[in-house]
Amino acid sequence: MQEQPLEQNLQTLMDLQHRLAAYEHAIGLIQYDGATTAPKGTADNRAVSLSVLSEELYRCATGKETAALLDALDAKKDALTAEQKQMVYLLRKDITEMKKIPMQEYVAFQALLAKADDVWHTAKETNDFGLFCPYLEQIFETTRRFAQYVEPDKDPYDHCLSQYEEGLTTQTLDTFFQKLRTALVPLLQKIAAQPQVDDSIRFGDFPLEKQEVLSVYLMKTLGLDLRHVGLSTTEHPFTTSLGSHFDERITTHYHRDDFVSSMYSVIHEGGHALYDTGSADELAYTVLDGGTSMSIHESQSRFYENILGRSKAFCAFLFPKLCELFPHQMTGRTAEDLYRAVNKVEPSLIRTEADELTYSMHIMIRYELEKKVLAGELAVKDLPQEWNRLYKAYLGVDVPDDTHGILQDSHWAGGLIGYFPSYALGNAYGAQFLQKMKEQIDVDACLNAGDLSPINDWNHAQIWQFGRLYTPEEILSRVLDAPFDADAYITYLCEKAKDVYGIM
Amino acid sequence: MQEQPLEQNLQTLMDLQHRLAAYEHAIGLIQYDGATTAPKGTADNRAVSLSVLSEELYRCATGKETAALLDALDAKKDALTAEQKQMVYLLRKDITEMKKIPMQEYVAFQALLAKADDVWHTAKETNDFGLFCPYLEQIFETTRRFAQYVEPDKDPYDHCLSQYEEGLTTQTLDTFFQKLRTALVPLLQKIAAQPQVDDSIRFGDFPLEKQEVLSVYLMKTLGLDLRHVGLSTTEHPFTTSLGSHFDERITTHYHRDDFVSSMYSVIHEGGHALYDTGSADELAYTVLDGGTSMSIHESQSRFYENILGRSKAFCAFLFPKLCELFPHQMTGRTAEDLYRAVNKVEPSLIRTEADELTYSMHIMIRYELEKKVLAGELAVKDLPQEWNRLYKAYLGVDVPDDTHGILQDSHWAGGLIGYFPSYALGNAYGAQFLQKMKEQIDVDACLNAGDLSPINDWNHAQIWQFGRLYTPEEILSRVLDAPFDADAYITYLCEKAKDVYGIM
Repeated sequence: MQEQPLEQNLQTLMDLQHRLAAYEHAIGLIQYDGATTAPKGTADNRAVSLSVLSEELYRCATGKETAALLDALDAKKDALTAEQKQMVYLLRKDITEMKKIPMQEYVAFQALLAKADDVWHTAKETNDFGLFCPYLEQIFETTRRFAQYVEPDKDPYDHCLSQYEEGLTTQTLDTFFQKLRTALVPLLQKIAAQPQVDDSIRFGDFPLEKQEVLSVYLMKTLGLDLRHVGLSTTEHPFTTSLGSHFDERITTHYHRDDFVSSMYSVIHEGGHALYDTGSADELAYTVLDGGTSMSIHESQSRFYENILGRSKAFCAFLFPKLCELFPHQMTGRTAEDLYRAVNKVEPSLIRTEADELTYSMHIMIRYELEKKVLAGELAVKDLPQEWNRLYKAYLGVDVPDDTHGILQDSHWAGGLIGYFPSYALGNAYGAQFLQKMKEQIDVDACLNAGDLSPINDWNHAQIWQFGRLYTPEEILSRVLDAPFDADAYITYLCEKAKDVYGIM
Repeated sequence: MQEQPLEQNLQTLMDLQHRLAAYEHAIGLIQYDGATTAPKGTADNRAVSLSVLSEELYRCATGKETAALLDALDAKKDALTAEQKQMVYLLRKDITEMKKIPMQEYVAFQALLAKADDVWHTAKETNDFGLFCPYLEQIFETTRRFAQYVEPDKDPYDHCLSQYEEGLTTQTLDTFFQKLRTALVPLLQKIAAQPQVDDSIRFGDFPLEKQEVLSVYLMKTLGLDLRHVGLSTTEHPFTTSLGSHFDERITTHYHRDDFVSSMYSVIHEGGHALYDTGSADELAYTVLDGGTSMSIHESQSRFYENILGRSKAFCAFLFPKLCELFPHQMTGRTAEDLYRAVNKVEPSLIRTEADELTYSMHIMIRYELEKKVLAGELAVKDLPQEWNRLYKAYLGVDVPDDTHGILQDSHWAGGLIGYFPSYALGNAYGAQFLQKMKEQIDVDACLNAGDLSPINDWNHAQIWQFGRLYTPEEILSRVLDAPFDADAYITYLCEKAKDVYGIM
């Protein structure tokens, strides 16, 4: 093969990334459509198209021409910009991994996931783990097999964790979770001994059309550009980019009897959307577009949801809007009532509804289960029983049924094994970011005024604009001058507990 | 290239069609998403992905391997089933045409259409033809250029007409429209001399959530399987299949002050959906899936909308449901009031809202305009003026603005030039089908009972199940024992006028 001039190879590199982005747009939209709009009987039809498109994506990514191109560019990497170098690095890494998985197995897995997501919806609706079990078995089996194809010498679960946070291991997480447990368990015991907070403000009758108005208000308050960020409703809230960060979608789930649930889903997914849409526009349609890792992603979503969204200052800002939307329900209530209600600490069944203090326990349970299943120490069919046992042991709650237990999250049905720890790490990163941010910005003043732009500008300058240009470690070391640890997060949680429950 | 065994070639033929269907699923879904759900600022982003995917589709369809495969199968066509033969015929025909268009121009046209549709929405909203004009000029220019690439010796407009109805020419249409005009103009004059029908039953305040309930009720009454047919709202109602007839989408547009508009959109699009989803399941993911031509398609949609939906028997069936949904508005009204209101004949501005008698005039106007622009006798920038002149001449109405004039339809923005005559032909086919159907089925009894299954079964047996296996001419000659002509349609319209206006 004749050698191409560098300029031409760089153009081909951009074309390749445009092609990959278009396939991802198509595949992502078919999945999004399945979760939002598609008629209920169409999962098999989607699986057929997803098989074909993922096969085409696989061929495009792993073809000989692509390999030759990336090798040629890698050989001249001294002549590349930092962005181009990182594109070549990430593409080579992704493609090297992809090529180790036989194409037919890769394609079959995409089709399996399309069906599994559909079956999970029905299983959750009908409290029927037995229906979902064979799919989940296949998902875990395939995940383990793929891990062995790609990194045969590595522990399969460490491989999975690395998919969402490069270099993350069970060793790191064991230490992190141990530290959290040591700090949080006594704190939870102290809180349990205090009088409980009254959270009745959140319950009542909140018409969906009013909640929809609230969602749009929150999106605008967050600073999202509604010409490029859409909102839909789904069983489980999520965020996805379609083609590039120029088309971002978030979803929520409304409960008519509790407006707080959807409110924080919108703020959480809105945080993801801020990060994605904050990528520099030049990164669109390249592999550098979007977030650098799921932990950094969750550090943003949970930063907006909790650190900002559950703060006293934001509750004070938001309360008048709630009075306008829900005048009857807010009669006789105060912003302080709202603040205390959304910070009520109580062991509970549902992760996405959990308070900040017990949240990490929900993650630890999923972490323990994933680790055991991938190590072959726990059969998928025994997951519900072990789930329920751990909920009793870690949180003291009895799981009444699988709908409120093992079937509550969509992640495993979507093949996201090893994802959950990102949430806990993200929480901890966020607390460290907050410390740095407060050195430069009066965060509470921004929240009180409902003007998040100084906060967004800081995050944009420090994190968002770079997309995947820097690794998570590089982002952390750029933003923080200290190494990552859980102390800031623990301090933050203790202060919140002190403020809400008067615990020293 | 070594010759492959027939069995293997047939498998490759099916794989090829699966790939084409998956690309069409992706492209169709991106367009559908743009019309239904996507945030307003994302048209450029869609254009990027649509360019890539249409290029991939073009490559897949026109590649050397595909040509060799189809040639090999064509050479052995005596060994093929009727279905396989027709697949090879249609693919060779489509691909031969596609290959005559340079790939870059083909791809650029897809990107143009994605943007044009977006600009058309804004132009219609803001009554700004000037905004849309340069896009429409490019669409007409490209259409003429492509016509010359594909059939250089044919009149460009005849080529366009053939895209929607093989073999259709301006000669046929001139004769057809002349005959219609000769019959309808005096009839319209007689009606104008009669006392006008009271259609106030349709106007009032009809909450959207009630209209949505009506839509679902109508879809079920039509016999649509809601597990495979979805409903959304768009500026302009349409129907699309995604991947195969197993996932069909229809759309409507609600007017709060007039429930009849959306009601007949749902029935019209529901008719398209019945035809598409009626394809034999074995045809899914092949080029034989779906309808054989746009005229036959419109014969079904307009059959359900008008011949069935505006019949006295169906109005009688529907009226109690309307009383249940809109009790206040239906007080003191009768089924006969509904029947007369939905059959009121009155020259008007909007095609999709037009009565059956004046409808063809709307089509003739568009036909005249398309013909003139493609012949170079009329500039696109002069279209609004000529549109308004023809509306005055044919229908006697003054067009107040372009939103209610040249900008009302989405077809041209979607590149559908030569499509409109399908509606008029479809009307006429439908009237002939009705005559045959009535020989075997008591249509009015079915409608009175709201049980459309005998009617659907007849259409399924005669038309739907075959997909694209037969040409439109073959379908017509299978169903009718007489050749196509406009007489049945004219007789049908005269009878309706007699019933509603007492004209002999």
